[in-house]
Amino acid sequence: MISTREEVTQMILAAKVSKGIQWKQVADAIGLSKEWTTAGCLGQMTFNKQQAETVGEIFGLSDEAIAWLQVVPYKGSLPSAVPTDPLIYRWYEVVSVYGSTIKELIHEEFGDGIMSAIDFSMDIQREENPNGDRVNVVLSGKFLPYKSY
Amino acid sequence: MISTREEVTQMILAAKVSKGIQWKQVADAIGLSKEWTTAGCLGQMTFNKQQAETVGEIFGLSDEAIAWLQVVPYKGSLPSAVPTDPLIYRWYEVVSVYGSTIKELIHEEFGDGIMSAIDFSMDIQREENPNGDRVNVVLSGKFLPYKSY
Amino acid sequence: MISTREEVTQMILAAKVSKGIQWKQVADAIGLSKEWTTAGCLGQMTFNKQQAETVGEIFGLSDEAIAWLQVVPYKGSLPSAVPTDPLIYRWYEVVSVYGSTIKELIHEEFGDGIMSAIDFSMDIQREENPNGDRVNVVLSGKFLPYKSY
Amino acid sequence: MISTREEVTQMILAAKVSKGIQWKQVADAIGLSKEWTTAGCLGQMTFNKQQAETVGEIFGLSDEAIAWLQVVPYKGSLPSAVPTDPLIYRWYEVVSVYGSTIKELIHEEFGDGIMSAIDFSMDIQREENPNGDRVNVVLSGKFLPYKSY
Amino acid sequence: MISTREEVTQMILAAKVSKGIQWKQVADAIGLSKEWTTAGCLGQMTFNKQQAETVGEIFGLSDEAIAWLQVVPYKGSLPSAVPTDPLIYRWYEVVSVYGSTIKELIHEEFGDGIMSAIDFSMDIQREENPNGDRVNVVLSGKFLPYKSY
Amino acid sequence: MISTREEVTQMILAAKVSKGIQWKQVADAIGLSKEWTTAGCLGQMTFNKQQAETVGEIFGLSDEAIAWLQVVPYKGSLPSAVPTDPLIYRWYEVVSVYGSTIKELIHEEFGDGIMSAIDFSMDIQREENPNGDRVNVVLSGKFLPYKSY
Amino acid sequence: MISTREEVTQMILAAKVSKGIQWKQVADAIGLSKEWTTAGCLGQMTFNKQQAETVGEIFGLSDEAIAWLQVVPYKGSLPSAVPTDPLIYRWYEVVSVYGSTIKELIHEEFGDGIMSAIDFSMDIQREENPNGDRVNVVLSGKFLPYKSY
Amino acid sequence: MISTREEVTQMILAAKVSKGIQWKQVADAIGLSKEWTTAGCLGQMTFNKQQAETVGEIFGLSDEAIAWLQVVPYKGSLPSAVPTDPLIYRWYEVVSVYGSTIKELIHEEFGDGIMSAIDFSMDIQREENPNGDRVNVVLSGKFLPYKSY
Amino acid sequence: MISTREEVTQMILAAKVSKGIQWKQVADAIGLSKEWTTAGCLGQMTFNKQQAETVGEIFGLSDEAIAWLQVVPYKGSLPSAVPTDPLIYRWYEVVSVYGSTIKELIHEEFGDGIMSAIDFSMDIQREENPNGDRVNVVLSGKFLPYKSY
Amino acid sequence: MISTREEVTQMILAAKVSKGIQWKQVADAIGLSKEWTTAGCLGQMTFNKQQAETVGEIFGLSDEAIAWLQVVPYKGSLPSAVPTDPLIYRWYEVVSVYGSTIKELIHEEFGDGIMSAIDFSMDIQREENPNGDRVNVVLSGKFLPYKSY
Repeated sequence: MISTREEVTQMILAAKVSKGIQWKQVADAIGLSKEWTTAGCLGQMTFNKQQAETVGEIFGLSDEAIAWLQVVPYKGSLPSAVPTDPLIYRWYEVVSVYGSTIKELIHEEFGDGIMSAIDFSMDIQREENPNGDRVNVVLSGKFLPYKSY
Repeated sequence: MISTREEVTQMILAAKVSKGIQWKQVADAIGLSKEWTTAGCLGQMTFNKQQAETVGEIFGLSDEAIAWLQVVPYKGSLPSAVPTDPLIYRWYEVVSVYGSTIKELIHEEFGDGIMSAIDFSMDIQREENPNGDRVNVVLSGKFLPYKSY
Repeated sequence: MISTREEVTQMILAAKVSKGIQWKQVADAIGLSKEWTTAGCLGQMTFNKQQAETVGEIFGLSDEAIAWLQVVPYKGSLPSAVPTDPLIYRWYEVVSVYGSTIKELIHEEFGDGIMSAIDFSMDIQREENPNGDRVNVVLSGKFLPYKSY
Repeated sequence: MISTREEVTQMILAAKVSKGIQWKQVADAIGLSKEWTTAGCLGQMTFNKQQAETVGEIFGLSDEAIAWLQVVPYKGSLPSAVPTDPLIYRWYEVVSVYGSTIKELIHEEFGDGIMSAIDFSMDIQREENPNGDRVNVVLSGKFLPYKSY
Repeated sequence: MISTREEVTQMILAAKVSKGIQWKQVADAIGLSKEWTTAGCLGQMTFNKQQAETVGEIFGLSDEAIAWLQVVPYKGSLPSAVPTDPLIYRWYEVVSVYGSTIKELIHEEFGDGIMSAIDFSMDIQREENPNGDRVNVVLSGKFLPYKSY
Repeated sequence: MISTREEVTQMILAAKVSKGIQWKQVADAIGLSKEWTTAGCLGQMTFNKQQAETVGEIFGLSDEAIAWLQVVPYKGSLPSAVPTDPLIYRWYEVVSVYGSTIKELIHEEFGDGIMSAIDFSMDIQREENPNGDRVNVVLSGKFLPYKSY
Repeated sequence: MISTREEVTQMILAAKVSKGIQWKQVADAIGLSKEWTTAGCLGQMTFNKQQAETVGEIFGLSDEAIAWLQVVPYKGSLPSAVPTDPLIYRWYEVVSVYGSTIKELIHEEFGDGIMSAIDFSMDIQREENPNGDRVNVVLSGKFLPYKSY
Repeated sequence: MISTREEVTQMILAAKVSKGIQWKQVADAIGLSKEWTTAGCLGQMTFNKQQAETVGEIFGLSDEAIAWLQVVPYKGSLPSAVPTDPLIYRWYEVVSVYGSTIKELIHEEFGDGIMSAIDFSMDIQREENPNGDRVNVVLSGKFLPYKSY
Repeated sequence: MISTREEVTQMILAAKVSKGIQWKQVADAIGLSKEWTTAGCLGQMTFNKQQAETVGEIFGLSDEAIAWLQVVPYKGSLPSAVPTDPLIYRWYEVVSVYGSTIKELIHEEFGDGIMSAIDFSMDIQREENPNGDRVNVVLSGKFLPYKSY
Repeated sequence: MISTREEVTQMILAAKVSKGIQWKQVADAIGLSKEWTTAGCLGQMTFNKQQAETVGEIFGLSDEAIAWLQVVPYKGSLPSAVPTDPLIYRWYEVVSVYGSTIKELIHEEFGDGIMSAIDFSMDIQREENPNGDRVNVVLSGKFLPYKSY
């Protein structure tokens, strides 16, 4: 009996290591970006029936697990409010150090509102660089204005 | 007597509103990006003497305040560990929902290590879009590998 | 020198009590709903120039304060993560007790996504009732779907 | 041996996914609203004997589980004080941003007291809209005044 | 300029000590219980005009402060979620140790619902006792049932 | 192997539901108040040998479990510092709203000291009332004075 | 205007440093232990009229401040739940490391109950020791048994 | 497979209850104080081989468990930063109320430094007293001075 | 099925105790420092294939566990934000007491930037000393400057 | 009136910036290490009379401030339990990632006990390096063993 999506995520992670699967392979198999696909496998996005079956086949999941992949998950992938993992912490630090800057510049350009985290996409790329390669990440989110009523 | 950089940030914000200054104007005046300049004015970066004097002139700061702009600040621009402002929260949410995804994909591409938040730059742009304009943000950070020793 | 919107909110609250002003009067004067207007006066929304001047006149604010009313505020109106005020706590309790229910039913109807808190409006009305009058609140938010990419 | 209502909620969620049950079907079967019924299935409300047996039949629960559905649960459906799930967070944000507004307007209309979260009902509906469908939620709670004594 | 009820509470406390006023005197003056009156003076209840003026006279408050006494306060009288003061902590401990017992016995007697903290009164009395006097407190709250809908 | 009292509490709760036992029956069987008896069954009080055996017989516990009932437990019956359950929260709210009032009035009557939560008893009764029945709770605790030394 | 005991504590600390007063001198002047006297001066105990006047004279306090010394304070002398000061932290560590041991041994000797922190005294002495002098602290608290009722 | 000392502590506690062992008996068997011995059995101290074998024999532990008794544990015996158990809380309260007093008096006597919690011993005794027996605890810790360098 | 690196760490710790393995032996076997090797075994670093196989052989791990040793772990080895273990707490205390000093001195020498915790190594040595042996730890991290852009 | 050491620290920081003083100059003037001297100026260590006067002269402090420099401070230099400043966070991260490693290796070498943070010194040096200069920090603390008693 599976009663949370988290359990399915654990199955996927166990299978990924024991079978040596790459996230990019999964993304190619379902024909979407590696960012969205990985988020889905980690329990943050909802697969449709066909995607879920493909994922299930790759990781050797039961029908019950495949059904869970099609259920909207309770999102949030981190075990604590301030992340302890150094890689993820650096992102939290960016929000901490640059958060007020981002807020000021978006408001200066667009007025009051937010950058959507739902109508949103992300693209992670390696930039080769003689001083050490760089991670380049493009975040794109629709601007949603507050309106008076 | 000024005893924290925070007080200087408050002076800058008060002057900005009463004088109607734009961050981009400040950035142009010191010849750097609007992202770094704004972060500096908000107490997250350190200005050199010339930059500090230019900033001081724009906002009408005292010599003591200008001296503080050249002191490395205690960084972190948010008043709580989980931000309450909707715009900044959306960024925290991205880290929460996509954090494990970002970690997996950077490790898949680069191995163990982090994306630097120090050797780092950010660029925020408006993308015109018939379905509603978008905020596009490019984050670029050097990959720093963990090595065994 | 005013360096935060919070200070302006304090001025408005002090004037409201000493002058005996009603939120509805303010809303009528600027021609918008009492909900949005009150949120604006409490430092959660941004006024345009004309609205700010009207608000300034009603509460007797300085030009500097009126300028601050037109600056996008750092939002979040509660002093602690779990509110202590009984009225506001009841709303937090609704989110705590019914949160998973709301999530399940919106997903059952709409699929994966959220109800926007930005493209959002609220209407609070008294319903007369022989067993004791009721507070009726209508919340209306655009559904924003997660899409794969 | 079942020693918490939470375990029964887990059984219901597991059965719901593997059997493809809709909350509305459950609500129809027991003849109550989808909002109250779902809250009950998620461990926030108490079923009477007949309701519990109907729910038990739908989800294939044991007699012991059906007995637990009739026990008043320890309520609160969220795993953390500040919810991480984006949909539920938006509701928390409404309380954060509009909390002081709701407080002011209810007090302006009714005086000191609260809007009950016990003598309370909720109704969630889809509103079709050419700019994107909306989620409309009506909350209705009895006003309970503080009295002096 | 007074912008929070808290400031008025501070004025009352300062006057109480410097003038040597007793809470019971205040209660007698406004003709209500010492429990409700003290809670009001400490910023947790709302006075009507006549009560506020009596309180204002006793403590020597300004008209502005008297106006604030008639405004519904943001309630919650403790500086931390877990109180540090030994007397108040003992009450928190009662909730911690006996909380589940209180819940079980009220549900056994009344079914699902709560004991109201709004339609509520409290009476504190000294009971003389040869083994040491006792504090006896009677709490009386209306039972509010959850109903299905 | 049982290694915490908590496990015994779980056994009692499971047996209570499956056998339909009432707390009052247990209290009658051991000849003490329903308040103390329930607190004991919920792992907050220590039974003597005879009481433990009676409780064990009622709930069908093993000898090992009965031995644990006679061990002083690690007390505290709530899963979080601020309780999420609405009934228990109302009690926490009483401490929050009336805490400073209780403190002031006990000190006004008794001087510096506390109301004991150890030399303490509690009595919960239904009061019939045409406006809706009330829960009346009497708390009685010995006053313990601070003395100088 | 003084509105909290904390302000008086600050005055005492300021005077102590500028006048070079020792706690033992204060204790001698009021004829009580240095432990209780210091706790009183630091805002944790209540002085009677005569003691307050002596303390006031030593530290040069105003009549208003002397009145506050006779008011029962809101106790708790540390600025955070886990103390950061190394000396005070060591005591917190003793509670953390030895807490369960203290609990087991008091219960083994006395049965269920507590060691009072109210009917309590403390004595701090230097023990000369060739391996380095030691701090010896004797804590004495009345045992208060839980009784059934 | 045992992978934490905590599991061994659980085994000891289970055996203690089912076999009715007293901590003093264990202390006598290994020839050390009851305080240190109990702390060791509760997973806070490290036994040497001979002590571990004696403890293992008394509680009927496996060889693997006996090996774990000789491994330095991750210390800290309380499940939360602020303890909920009334007996242990009283100790935390002593640190909260008297913490600043202890700090002042040790510094007045010894200068800057701490009372060691490592080079430390504790002795718990019953003091018979006609007003109710008392728990007397002697804490002895070496003074460690901060030195300049 | 293994689904987290944490489970492998538990296996290593269990095997270490039951087999009596020393960290230095493991470090010698893989030819790296004892610091890095131990961190790796405790789930904080990533082994390459050959290292993982050596570690697996020493601790008797399954192929699946050995595969997990080569996966980048979610880092952070402590169970709470403020560590409770006395040895680890002392390090946290150094950061608390000396943190601002370290910041000032590194900035005085290097300007704005950080000392890397990634391009970092650590060396722990015993220094014999007649007054008691000392633990000497050398931390070496690359300085990473913030640059303007 | 100065009532906390913190106020003196603020005066020192203000003077340092306006006068352009270096910590090394201060250290030279009092003839001690830059690490200890800076910690003292930042309110973490206690100066003797002569040192305090030298510091007072350098920073232009009043006699009252100089008296405070000789009072043992309430230590802890960071504004939050998890530091937000990137430089200081890296040190916290070292404790988080390497904490269990440090614990294991010190215990492997010395047995149960701690590395003192009181009988402790720190030395921070620049190491020139063609790949980028490094910060080298030597921490030296006396090993303090736990002993049985």
